[in-house]
Amino acid sequence: MSLYIGVAGASRPAPGLLEQAEVLGRRLAEAGAVVVCGGGPGVMEAVCRGARSAGGTTVGLLPGVDRRDGNPYLSVAVPTGMGQGRNLLLVRSSDAMVAVGGGFGTLSEIALALRTGVPVVGLATWSLHLDSGPVDAFPVAGDAESAAHLVIDAARSFQTDPTRGEPDV
Amino acid sequence: MSLYIGVAGASRPAPGLLEQAEVLGRRLAEAGAVVVCGGGPGVMEAVCRGARSAGGTTVGLLPGVDRRDGNPYLSVAVPTGMGQGRNLLLVRSSDAMVAVGGGFGTLSEIALALRTGVPVVGLATWSLHLDSGPVDAFPVAGDAESAAHLVIDAARSFQTDPTRGEPDV
Amino acid sequence: MSLYIGVAGASRPAPGLLEQAEVLGRRLAEAGAVVVCGGGPGVMEAVCRGARSAGGTTVGLLPGVDRRDGNPYLSVAVPTGMGQGRNLLLVRSSDAMVAVGGGFGTLSEIALALRTGVPVVGLATWSLHLDSGPVDAFPVAGDAESAAHLVIDAARSFQTDPTRGEPDV
Amino acid sequence: MSLYIGVAGASRPAPGLLEQAEVLGRRLAEAGAVVVCGGGPGVMEAVCRGARSAGGTTVGLLPGVDRRDGNPYLSVAVPTGMGQGRNLLLVRSSDAMVAVGGGFGTLSEIALALRTGVPVVGLATWSLHLDSGPVDAFPVAGDAESAAHLVIDAARSFQTDPTRGEPDV
Repeated sequence: MSLYIGVAGASRPAPGLLEQAEVLGRRLAEAGAVVVCGGGPGVMEAVCRGARSAGGTTVGLLPGVDRRDGNPYLSVAVPTGMGQGRNLLLVRSSDAMVAVGGGFGTLSEIALALRTGVPVVGLATWSLHLDSGPVDAFPVAGDAESAAHLVIDAARSFQTDPTRGEPDV
Repeated sequence: MSLYIGVAGASRPAPGLLEQAEVLGRRLAEAGAVVVCGGGPGVMEAVCRGARSAGGTTVGLLPGVDRRDGNPYLSVAVPTGMGQGRNLLLVRSSDAMVAVGGGFGTLSEIALALRTGVPVVGLATWSLHLDSGPVDAFPVAGDAESAAHLVIDAARSFQTDPTRGEPDV
Repeated sequence: MSLYIGVAGASRPAPGLLEQAEVLGRRLAEAGAVVVCGGGPGVMEAVCRGARSAGGTTVGLLPGVDRRDGNPYLSVAVPTGMGQGRNLLLVRSSDAMVAVGGGFGTLSEIALALRTGVPVVGLATWSLHLDSGPVDAFPVAGDAESAAHLVIDAARSFQTDPTRGEPDV
Repeated sequence: MSLYIGVAGASRPAPGLLEQAEVLGRRLAEAGAVVVCGGGPGVMEAVCRGARSAGGTTVGLLPGVDRRDGNPYLSVAVPTGMGQGRNLLLVRSSDAMVAVGGGFGTLSEIALALRTGVPVVGLATWSLHLDSGPVDAFPVAGDAESAAHLVIDAARSFQTDPTRGEPDV
């Protein structure tokens, strides 16, 4: 069974992240993974462009109801009509996830993944703190190559984890 | 842009429907359509088997959270964790839909498609009546070949309809 | 624990149904039930007006994201932003449901209730047919008084059913 | 129209938070607000107990499909069957939200609220950092009394904001 790697990232990311996202997509496709994302522009489009350039499959879970809103590099576009509700759908669709950059939608995907047991790898994204200090909730990669390695390993472990796929209620 | 054809049908259909579903899947794939379904056994598996045998792409929107519950003929499996909530997701993902057989889940997909303006074609499925008599809400095909023709035509019209993709609120 | 009775019905119903819906709401409230509906106009508003006139509690599960879209007779208004996805939420919130009139949204609620085991009572609504003839899937009431009695009894049985509340996946 | 105040918080919170949550619930009810939460134990139960003790109305949006899983202090219990998908429903149901404590579910609710424009007040909860340093995304209250004041003010502003209720797609 294929690995499905989710990529969370903003439609209007900070400069420099698009190149990283494109490399990430290419490496994930080279490893044989299906790339799942929100299907929009920005980080989502760049990661899909990278994956398709390496012959990969990309899935976009769109927030709206019109498939034409998807970016041009989607193999499969699913217009969910769920708004930010598609963020949980992305998490549930992923064997592991990379969070790229600092949007609030991305933060929600990090949190939902941590809450439901889906492994997360960070790339230039949020870090979390409580009063007691920083909380080391997920590994952080220094660049896209490293993020691809970490997330593929995490997804392989997740796929063979007998407790994965547990209802999150 | 590819046509996406939804196929609604039960996991334990009446005898004879599996052969019809497999032919339907093959014809849809030959027409270049992506086949979207609930990803389970029965009609869903048969239509995917047919589509894959013709080189097509199949998408399964699973009710649970475990991708391994999908049938073996899915190109892409999306575990939604939404239970019967994935029925609306199937409708929203479809440019037109074929309803096969007489399950209540299938009936819900017919109703949601009619409610949100997605064209429906029936194949050995429900007919609807009010006090005033039968309601002719969607065309009914006599066999799988005919259902494939009707639904592809309906999806083409839907794709070029400027009002499609309207929010259903 | 209170009984929760769902009422499915159109925003633009056939003439005469509003009076029936108002009587239905009053009788449900007199029986101590919480009335759950889609929160909109038409049948939904009439059933809420009836329930509030008898001191009852009404809950509206709105399709959009703005609470101000709810009708004026809601005790609690929940803007779901789920469009027709709120129809399943209505079913899940109900110990039993009355379907009033002939809209397609109402038909989807009937089908989702039958699919997930929530008892349905019909009032001037759809009847279902397969090739083999009519399918007697739920009881039909002749008027609002009778619908109220039937649905309250069904909800009481459902509440004491040890298998209710099973996941529908 | 009533103010609806969401309260996000864990079922197994850090010691001391339950007392704070109960005070928060009481103050919100005294201000006339409807309290919306996930309907479970822990922070959710404590805030409901406080609100009910002051005669308030409480709404629980349960992750599962069984109403009996709700805590005993709910005026209205809605079993959504959406798992962590109910977190977005909580955000959409709130004119403003208090986040109490440090769970990942709570973090997702903070993120979804920030993403969709619903005001957030923190109480002994997460703080957010990017590489460039701490991000001051929402006000933090020192105690429950202060959180109640801040969130009521924020909800009043939100209710009169002509741009609220915008689709988040």
